[in-house]
Amino acid sequence: MSRAIAIVGGTGPEGSGLALRWARAGETVIIGSRDLGRAQDAAARIAAKLASQGQVQGLENPAAVAAVEVVVLTVPFTGQATLLKQLKPAFRPGAMLIDTTVPLAASIGGRATRSLGVWQGSAAQQAAELVPKGVAVAAAFQNLSAELLHADEPVDCDVIVCSDDDRARQVASELAEKIPGVRALNGGSLENARIVEQLTALLITLNLRYGVHKAGLRITGLPIKESTE
Amino acid sequence: MSRAIAIVGGTGPEGSGLALRWARAGETVIIGSRDLGRAQDAAARIAAKLASQGQVQGLENPAAVAAVEVVVLTVPFTGQATLLKQLKPAFRPGAMLIDTTVPLAASIGGRATRSLGVWQGSAAQQAAELVPKGVAVAAAFQNLSAELLHADEPVDCDVIVCSDDDRARQVASELAEKIPGVRALNGGSLENARIVEQLTALLITLNLRYGVHKAGLRITGLPIKESTE
Repeated sequence: MSRAIAIVGGTGPEGSGLALRWARAGETVIIGSRDLGRAQDAAARIAAKLASQGQVQGLENPAAVAAVEVVVLTVPFTGQATLLKQLKPAFRPGAMLIDTTVPLAASIGGRATRSLGVWQGSAAQQAAELVPKGVAVAAAFQNLSAELLHADEPVDCDVIVCSDDDRARQVASELAEKIPGVRALNGGSLENARIVEQLTALLITLNLRYGVHKAGLRITGLPIKESTE
Repeated sequence: MSRAIAIVGGTGPEGSGLALRWARAGETVIIGSRDLGRAQDAAARIAAKLASQGQVQGLENPAAVAAVEVVVLTVPFTGQATLLKQLKPAFRPGAMLIDTTVPLAASIGGRATRSLGVWQGSAAQQAAELVPKGVAVAAAFQNLSAELLHADEPVDCDVIVCSDDDRARQVASELAEKIPGVRALNGGSLENARIVEQLTALLITLNLRYGVHKAGLRITGLPIKESTE
């Protein structure tokens, strides 16, 4: 199954890593950026890494959002709310937003091992307040390090998907499992995203303590297997 | 190495599970309870499961705390602060407290998949405010399900230890790795316990969603091996 995915903030390390993995899996990816030139450059860099080209293009953020049913948001927390307000008119009716935002204190000059409190409970719930009615939100991918995404090997990490919408959860889970090694897990309702978001700060602590850049997590004891890829 | 460990709230499912695992590993365990008879009954039930007996006894909580250098707190969140205030005079100078408390909303009649906000940031930081000066606090063991602890097989879960005190972190880590299968990880300072505590609520969500009782977690991508037991 192929579908078009717009990655808002797709020129950044996390967004471009997801773009690379999905393009490799045969998905059609649109890199969104504030600047058309930067979007096109990022798309060209990713296309150059693919065996078969042409599945990745760059557009300005509003055009990227308007072009697809599946929008993935990968911007720093400080830009999230402002950007979503700007993009609100661009969403197609019935589109869905997959939010990867983590409210790290680093986004306001604090530590990457600490998180900010968000009034709504999580960045994902803030996003859900800001998208048009009828646009479903799922939270996912917060715990995948950009370094892992840009590597060639399978990603040794589960993706915990939180959503109040079954279709959004399903699409986010399918996209997660397009990444070799990733297992998608049902993390329940969107409000649970607050825990998954904060887990990223803990993974950063572990990265610092153990001198690595690719700590991830696997949930054990579940009756479903991890991906064998 | 053997040492005496007092488990305050040791008659409950989590405390008795830790007591069983540590007694099996050759540690000397004192089950603490408000009621001496219940403490002794719980100790006898655990002793009956051991190949070699006599390493487990029951005492009232204050006597248990006064008897040891290593105190492990395994009570519901609603009882934590009151109990620590009562026990404050009982701590030995230089003792350490290993706090396993999770501020689940279930403790006040809410959902086990939600947590309560604690003014200090975490139950562990609340504990650190309430122990006598000179008593070091480590947070650990929050993510080990009682069911896993009471089973015979190795526990497929990492224990993330958060502390501002190197000795408390080391003792908590040693005790964690006395449990077959468990790997202890350095989770940084005590303030990070808030994330580890909330992870328990997420594990409960996953237990509910997947119909199991023993979800745990492993951190991937670190340069240290998991226990082979």
